[in-house]
Amino acid sequence: MKLATYKINHTAPRLGVVQDNHMIDLEDVAKIKKTVLPQTMLELIDLGLTEVSRIQELIDSLTEEERTNCYYPLSNVTFLAPIPKPRKNIIGIGLNYTEHVAESARTLDTSNDLPQEPVIFSKPPTTVTGTNTEILHNPKLTQQLDWEVELAVIIGKEGKYVPKENAMDYVFGYTVINDISARDCRRSGQWIVSKGQDTFAPMGPVLVTKDEIPNPHNLNLSLKLNGVEKQNSNTKFMLFNINDLIEDLSTVFTLEPGDIIATGTPAGVGAGRNPQEWMWNGDVVEATVEGIGTIVNTVKEI
Amino acid sequence: MKLATYKINHTAPRLGVVQDNHMIDLEDVAKIKKTVLPQTMLELIDLGLTEVSRIQELIDSLTEEERTNCYYPLSNVTFLAPIPKPRKNIIGIGLNYTEHVAESARTLDTSNDLPQEPVIFSKPPTTVTGTNTEILHNPKLTQQLDWEVELAVIIGKEGKYVPKENAMDYVFGYTVINDISARDCRRSGQWIVSKGQDTFAPMGPVLVTKDEIPNPHNLNLSLKLNGVEKQNSNTKFMLFNINDLIEDLSTVFTLEPGDIIATGTPAGVGAGRNPQEWMWNGDVVEATVEGIGTIVNTVKEI
Repeated sequence: MKLATYKINHTAPRLGVVQDNHMIDLEDVAKIKKTVLPQTMLELIDLGLTEVSRIQELIDSLTEEERTNCYYPLSNVTFLAPIPKPRKNIIGIGLNYTEHVAESARTLDTSNDLPQEPVIFSKPPTTVTGTNTEILHNPKLTQQLDWEVELAVIIGKEGKYVPKENAMDYVFGYTVINDISARDCRRSGQWIVSKGQDTFAPMGPVLVTKDEIPNPHNLNLSLKLNGVEKQNSNTKFMLFNINDLIEDLSTVFTLEPGDIIATGTPAGVGAGRNPQEWMWNGDVVEATVEGIGTIVNTVKEI
Repeated sequence: MKLATYKINHTAPRLGVVQDNHMIDLEDVAKIKKTVLPQTMLELIDLGLTEVSRIQELIDSLTEEERTNCYYPLSNVTFLAPIPKPRKNIIGIGLNYTEHVAESARTLDTSNDLPQEPVIFSKPPTTVTGTNTEILHNPKLTQQLDWEVELAVIIGKEGKYVPKENAMDYVFGYTVINDISARDCRRSGQWIVSKGQDTFAPMGPVLVTKDEIPNPHNLNLSLKLNGVEKQNSNTKFMLFNINDLIEDLSTVFTLEPGDIIATGTPAGVGAGRNPQEWMWNGDVVEATVEGIGTIVNTVKEI
C-alpha cells in the first residue's frame, strides 16, 4: 500500500492511500464504512500492518458510488511528508556505500577505510519537509549545499537487541529522503549542523508498506540536479544492509514505531565531484527510489 | 516554581508542584478548583509561564482542608524525568567549559583550541531516565562509561534567528542532566553512539521555572561518584552562555517548546583524569546543580 499525508484545498493534513491515480481519503472511508480509522501516519504505524490490511479490505469493498465520495484525483492534492513531525530525530547512516566512502575521503575529512560499524548521526524533526517544497539555503551558514538520495526505512514496532535475521519483522515500510548536507558546517567533526538545518530532509512522496517491496536490497536510487543525473546506484551496494542496521541500531537505542532510518547515499554527491558542485538558489533537485517515487525540491536562498 | 513529573503508588505519570516538602498534585488541584490544568509537562510548557502563574494562584488559594486532598509527602512519591518523553533528541553542547576542552584534548581526540562556535550533538528521547534509576551499562558496547553534570535549559516557545539579547524570552526553565558518555563508542568521530544509549540522560529531579533562577550564569554544579567529588564548577565558566547558545542554535534549527539543551560539562570527567576512571556495575553517581537539585543514579551492568 502507498500511504500519504496530504492536503486538499486548505484542509488540515489528512491520511490517504494512493491507488490508480487517486488519493483515497481515509477519513471519508471511515465515515462511509461507519468505522474508525487512524488520522495520522504515526497512529497508523502504531496500529501496524494488520490495520493496513483492514484498510485495504475496506477500500476493496467500496461500491462505485461510495468511491465518488472518497476518491480524489492526484492532480488536486498536495503531498506532505509522510511523517510530517517525527517523534525524534531521523537516524542517519553515513558512509554506507563503498564509492561514497571513497569520494568522501578524497574531498571531506573522513577516512578512506570502510567503516567497521555503521556511522550514525541525526537530523531533527524540523528538517522534515515534503515534495514540491523549498530547501532553505542560508548562505551565511553554508556555501556548500549538497544532495544525498537515500532509501529510508520506517520502523513499525519497538525493538531492542533485534537479531539481523528477524530485523524485517520490525519494518513498517519505506520512503525516500534527500539527506541535504552543508559540507562546511561540521563542528568539531559533528555532522548535526551540516545535516540538521530546517528543511534538510525532504521526504516522500509516499510511504510504501513493506509488503509492496519484497526485496529492499535491490532498488535503483538516483538523483538529478536541474535535470542532469548526479547519482545512480542500487541499494544492493549498501555496506551495512537494513538487517545489519536494525541489529546494530537496536543494540545502541531502543527502536520505536515511527523511527526513521535514512540508510545512506551512494556516490555522486557534489562534494565528491571534480570540480565540486553545490546547490544554489533556484536549483531543482529530484531524488528517486524505485518502487517508491520521486521527491522534487527547489533551493531557495533566505 | 519547581515542577515534577511523578508517580504515587502505581498511578500513571502525573504532573505536580514541589513546595514545602510536599508534592502538590495538579490533577487534584484542578478537581478541587473545578478547572482544567495540563496533565503533562509538555502540555504545561506549551501553555507557557502564564499558566505557571495561574497554577501558583490556584495553589495559594487552597484552604487547609483542600490541601489535605492534593498535598502528598515527598517521601511517598517517585520522581520521574520532568519530561519523560521529549519530542525530539536532546540538543547537547560539547566542549563548553575551558578546562573540559583541555582535559578532552589530552585524552580524547578533540582539539586543544577553544571552539569558535558551539559544538552540537544529540541524545535520543530513549536516553531519558529520572533520578533514582539505573544507568544501563552494556559492557559489549563500552568499557569507558563516563559522567558529565550539566545545566539543561528547557525552551518555552518557538524561535528562529533569536538575537542573544532576547534569548531569555525563549526559556521556560531549567533542569539537571547527567550526560552519560561512552568514550570508546565514537564512530567516524560522531558522538551519538557514545552519548545516545538507552538511559544515558538521567534528568531531574524537577524542572525549575526561570523566574526562580534570576541568574542561570552563576550556578554551582558538581558531581560525586560513590560519594567522592569529581566535578565542581560554576555555570559562569561556560564558553558559550545560554544567550549565545540560543542565538546560535536558533540560526541552525527552529527551536520549539519542550526542546532541551544540555549546556555542556565542566572539567573532572573520568576520561580527563590521570589515571582515567570509568563507571562500573553498582557505582552511584550524583549530579547537582544549585537551585535545581540532585539526580542520583546507579550503574547496572546488563
